[in-house]
Amino acid sequence: MTEPTFEGVLAAARRIEAHAHRTPVMSSRTLDAELGATVHLKCENLQRMGAFKFRGAFNALASLDPSRRKAGVVAFSSGNHAQAIALSASLLDMPATILMPHDAPAAKVAATRGYGGKVVVYDRYREDREQIGRALAERDGLTLIPPYDHPDVICGQGTAARELFEQAGELDALFVPLGGGGLLSGSALVRAALAPDCQLYGVEPEAGDDGQRSLRSGSIVHIDTPRTIADGAQTQHLGTLTFPIIRREVTDILTASDAELVDTMRFLAERMKLVVEPTGCLGLAAARRMGAQLRGKRVGVLLSGGNVDMARFAELLAAS
Amino acid sequence: MTEPTFEGVLAAARRIEAHAHRTPVMSSRTLDAELGATVHLKCENLQRMGAFKFRGAFNALASLDPSRRKAGVVAFSSGNHAQAIALSASLLDMPATILMPHDAPAAKVAATRGYGGKVVVYDRYREDREQIGRALAERDGLTLIPPYDHPDVICGQGTAARELFEQAGELDALFVPLGGGGLLSGSALVRAALAPDCQLYGVEPEAGDDGQRSLRSGSIVHIDTPRTIADGAQTQHLGTLTFPIIRREVTDILTASDAELVDTMRFLAERMKLVVEPTGCLGLAAARRMGAQLRGKRVGVLLSGGNVDMARFAELLAAS
Repeated sequence: MTEPTFEGVLAAARRIEAHAHRTPVMSSRTLDAELGATVHLKCENLQRMGAFKFRGAFNALASLDPSRRKAGVVAFSSGNHAQAIALSASLLDMPATILMPHDAPAAKVAATRGYGGKVVVYDRYREDREQIGRALAERDGLTLIPPYDHPDVICGQGTAARELFEQAGELDALFVPLGGGGLLSGSALVRAALAPDCQLYGVEPEAGDDGQRSLRSGSIVHIDTPRTIADGAQTQHLGTLTFPIIRREVTDILTASDAELVDTMRFLAERMKLVVEPTGCLGLAAARRMGAQLRGKRVGVLLSGGNVDMARFAELLAAS
Repeated sequence: MTEPTFEGVLAAARRIEAHAHRTPVMSSRTLDAELGATVHLKCENLQRMGAFKFRGAFNALASLDPSRRKAGVVAFSSGNHAQAIALSASLLDMPATILMPHDAPAAKVAATRGYGGKVVVYDRYREDREQIGRALAERDGLTLIPPYDHPDVICGQGTAARELFEQAGELDALFVPLGGGGLLSGSALVRAALAPDCQLYGVEPEAGDDGQRSLRSGSIVHIDTPRTIADGAQTQHLGTLTFPIIRREVTDILTASDAELVDTMRFLAERMKLVVEPTGCLGLAAARRMGAQLRGKRVGVLLSGGNVDMARFAELLAAS
């Protein structure tokens, strides 16, 4: 394992090129008028399996040596990382074991199985998934790929921001959703190398502001699982790899409320015809809250994913 | 007024080039696997004002001479044509009056006003919009731009299929939503010139199968306003300009039920992260119903628009 670097991002870009989508960058005259800015939305909701997570997962698995590939991979996650690992493993012809809680939604279990993953169920109230994961890894020689605190995962996630700079040209500010910090630290490596003058904002749910508090205090703050509709950013703490990069490179960490996320989700569906999951709306919600400060600026936003249950999506759209 | 021709489509393409989006063509591995085909979706839901109608409206208004432009334009429409005329008129600095049914989706009425159009409301089931429109045109010297039966409108709509053939390459079959036949006859002119071997299917709502019956009987069949969720295809008859082209060029006219439209709408939102209005799902719904016949084929589908009221969209997604 090596330190995540911009060179690592470039290597990841080459590794994933034939498999990941180069997602489109979209804009909206209505949005530009609202902010008085030029806003470029990087549509990772249109990425394979519906989220940027595919980039990091594929990069991590494609970087393994043949013997480790053959033994297989294990991951624990109830969301996009699990599907990203299952799909990547299937593309690389590797066995994948995904640990999911016994009460995980049937649809998510089915989706993970659909991508070829072997689902192992654990009791979320009695068992420790990290312990089970490590035990399985040891017993069967599997490689454990964590959802964000891993150099190859971070470098893979950075490829999204790199594409955005290529597609949109110079940017004055970039807004990135923040959970455990994989996407944000990857983006930070890219910004430092390609656009040192671009301001970089991580955006987390208001109810889970551990990142903001970590940045203020200078050390990683742990919190209880936050209650928020942004289920992809319900992390309890930043990573030991992601935090130092974020601390060094990020302009600030902002928050968005659930109400702002719903409002932005509705805007994206109604005006831009895009389905974006609540977590994926964090960056744009913060940019909209910032408002006048962005006047005249070139703004980039990562829409990180679009995997939201349709019944849930309908429920959130219907609420006023 | 001249006969709509492929040369007219090319002229329209030049006229709208600086104003209309060249919309992306998307694909889905899940969809390709379902049909055993290669499916290219032309995303006119991502067109300006959210539908292909912008192409025809802008082309028609940009073709008017200066004195007619100055007097202004009137249009009658259940939605997207109205917005298209309002936006085009605003871009060309012309006054626009739009007749809309009393039960038009709230989002469409609001958007039409937002684009600077003056909205006049009529009762869809009791009043004759064509009569009201002609009276207004005569009284105030306005030019009436009908939603489909107009050469410049037809040629403008044809530019979408032309782009699709450029973007996707050769196609064995093309599926196009059918209301009054503007998009279908424009697509037919393009197919005849560029891809004479490509099968061309018009698709209308099951409840409003006047087009299918017209094709079978050889003359334009008039029906009562059909009750269907495909509000953009609630036309009562094909046009005197669109029907001869459709009759000459189209392989067949198919239908899709409201249940199939909802199913396809949900598929597009869930798997492709796209908001497509029910009318915009007609082509894909018919392709999915055709199923095995398309095995091994290269298939094009026009997703014609994405303007659906969010409350309505949520309601349709939530229904099982």
